[in-house]
Amino acid sequence: MSTELPQCKELIVEQQDHVLYLTINRPERRNAMTLNMVSEMMAIFEALLPRRDIRAVVFRGAEGHFCAGGDLKDMSGASKAAAEGDPDAYFRLNRQFGKMITLANQIPQVLITALEGTVMGGGFGLACISDWGIAHPSARFALPETSMGLPPAQIAPFVAARVGLTQARRLALFNVRIKADEARELGIVHSVAKDDDDFQALIQTAVEQVKQCAPEANAVTKALLLRVGNEEHEALLDDAARKFSDAVTQGEGPEGTMAFVEKRKPEWAQ
Amino acid sequence: MSTELPQCKELIVEQQDHVLYLTINRPERRNAMTLNMVSEMMAIFEALLPRRDIRAVVFRGAEGHFCAGGDLKDMSGASKAAAEGDPDAYFRLNRQFGKMITLANQIPQVLITALEGTVMGGGFGLACISDWGIAHPSARFALPETSMGLPPAQIAPFVAARVGLTQARRLALFNVRIKADEARELGIVHSVAKDDDDFQALIQTAVEQVKQCAPEANAVTKALLLRVGNEEHEALLDDAARKFSDAVTQGEGPEGTMAFVEKRKPEWAQ
Amino acid sequence: MSTELPQCKELIVEQQDHVLYLTINRPERRNAMTLNMVSEMMAIFEALLPRRDIRAVVFRGAEGHFCAGGDLKDMSGASKAAAEGDPDAYFRLNRQFGKMITLANQIPQVLITALEGTVMGGGFGLACISDWGIAHPSARFALPETSMGLPPAQIAPFVAARVGLTQARRLALFNVRIKADEARELGIVHSVAKDDDDFQALIQTAVEQVKQCAPEANAVTKALLLRVGNEEHEALLDDAARKFSDAVTQGEGPEGTMAFVEKRKPEWAQ
Repeated sequence: MSTELPQCKELIVEQQDHVLYLTINRPERRNAMTLNMVSEMMAIFEALLPRRDIRAVVFRGAEGHFCAGGDLKDMSGASKAAAEGDPDAYFRLNRQFGKMITLANQIPQVLITALEGTVMGGGFGLACISDWGIAHPSARFALPETSMGLPPAQIAPFVAARVGLTQARRLALFNVRIKADEARELGIVHSVAKDDDDFQALIQTAVEQVKQCAPEANAVTKALLLRVGNEEHEALLDDAARKFSDAVTQGEGPEGTMAFVEKRKPEWAQ
Repeated sequence: MSTELPQCKELIVEQQDHVLYLTINRPERRNAMTLNMVSEMMAIFEALLPRRDIRAVVFRGAEGHFCAGGDLKDMSGASKAAAEGDPDAYFRLNRQFGKMITLANQIPQVLITALEGTVMGGGFGLACISDWGIAHPSARFALPETSMGLPPAQIAPFVAARVGLTQARRLALFNVRIKADEARELGIVHSVAKDDDDFQALIQTAVEQVKQCAPEANAVTKALLLRVGNEEHEALLDDAARKFSDAVTQGEGPEGTMAFVEKRKPEWAQ
Repeated sequence: MSTELPQCKELIVEQQDHVLYLTINRPERRNAMTLNMVSEMMAIFEALLPRRDIRAVVFRGAEGHFCAGGDLKDMSGASKAAAEGDPDAYFRLNRQFGKMITLANQIPQVLITALEGTVMGGGFGLACISDWGIAHPSARFALPETSMGLPPAQIAPFVAARVGLTQARRLALFNVRIKADEARELGIVHSVAKDDDDFQALIQTAVEQVKQCAPEANAVTKALLLRVGNEEHEALLDDAARKFSDAVTQGEGPEGTMAFVEKRKPEWAQ
């Protein structure tokens, strides 16, 4: 289960203990996403699905910005393809990002986003799928798509799920820019750092905190949370009880309850 | 596309540039809604559906109050009809408001509500469908229906969608009255003005801000946001990508991206 | 309609006027829930379904704690049954709690939770279904399940419905503990008391406030709110209009509107 992760050119990928540090590395363009970068992200997140040795992903951008969204230069590639008679070039370009963010939202690890500087468009979308979002005071959030004549097509559902319909309407339809404190108030992030040191300390807290939680129990719980509202209530609870029973009898439950009774840390927290 | 809007008796309807100012004008009854007024609102919102020259609606009440809800006097009309053997008179009275607010929630323009004084019952419902809700410090919000022995029947879904189930329960079941600051905290409104001048300034900011956003892109985005949670995720993203492709190839996208590259305002922002 | 309520051993059940005071009484275990206690809760909530003389339930824990969740000692009973060849013992143990909390969420009375000290696991779940949640400054909230190797299986949907997906992710996957003020910010509770006296005063306010609201109208409204998002919008509004019509013609509406016109309190508020 600790096979190599895919090689990447536009992402820096580093594993330390139970944590994968994933850094968007295109600082000369404020980490705007290329089609190739989206493919690299997709490959990383796919590779994470079976991994239980990696329990947290810290996702950030290089050199002071998180991500400025999709790079407009890719549009010209799609434009060329469209001109040459491929009517679905723009559709695929857009949809590919949606497939990646849908997968990233569902990885069994916790996703910790560390957000500095520009968090815009597709970058805002990625900020909306974290399990613990941490903002640096420099962070600035916006959905500028409609000011460029485009809908935030693949992003809209993740923004609405994140902040609710009420706030999503204003964010998406008025091209407003918001700062870190308002982002916390709206639920885009969970925590705002006071300064650089506090930013690192908050990331470290999140990374330490998750170590207390059993990897498989966390994976099962995250999957359950993502199903709420999309499935019939009683059927979801039936399946959840089945998963509870599995955890107690075949999973991490025996170690967890034993450790509790013996007043020691369970093995996953050591 | 710039045909006349319907004539109204209980609403003041004024267009200035890209903005429609819609004012409930029954101040002697704190702008309580009559059946006729609900029909006038319905006609206005229907007329707005194809209009792209009108990009924002500023919705408010005359003389210091937004709206005190449905006028109880209309009940006597329904009562008479019921007494004369029309068992559906009350059903239709109530349902008609629900049809109007459902339509108003979906207009392609942004809806800016400017809320002063009384915002109660059906008026509270109308406050729950704005894209940018702005409260004057005088605003007072309540759902007093159950204190009169009635359910807030057509309003409940819009309140729950607005503030979430948690807050909707307390608001609807305890006849609490809340002030502007708490309304912002709960997400009923997005902004609270400090005073009269600030109230006008906030409305103006919202009106200016929306000018940056392309009309059709905004209409498409608003419609997408309203579909989130009501449709299967992948199918929604497929359709969203199709709309993205349309915007790039046949819509406002070319002008938006060209303006961005040329560092000028796009035509819709001029 | 005012038949006796079921006798309980681990719950204290007291009716005063229109209010049922329900107190978890196992203070030596911080009110952790046994299987028997869950059955007693189930019996009480079932008995409340037809009662309109009881209009509010004040739900709390004895001696400074609300509830520490499910008692781990019950696990050994299920463990024994499982060892003796009953593969569904843990499933039933878990599912039984889910059936109880699903029912408790739907009682026609308003549910007021008064939360002190420990509010953890299943206790946190019960905190998530109140119509008015009131926290004492001593209250501490946590979902420690995954730190014991178990998913918060029956609780997850109620937490997600309460605080939204964004906050539920962090709460359930990082074993964080939060205090009363943050619980209010996240929407777990509606109010935080300053001290003991204020705690009692807030409970009293909630109990008085609900008296203004007609019992049947409140029951109908609560049921409508719980259906939002789970049913097709237009069908829900059709049914809501039917219930409005019933309230006006056969229910509490005539008394409510008459009292309003006569500027007196309706009978249910006296």
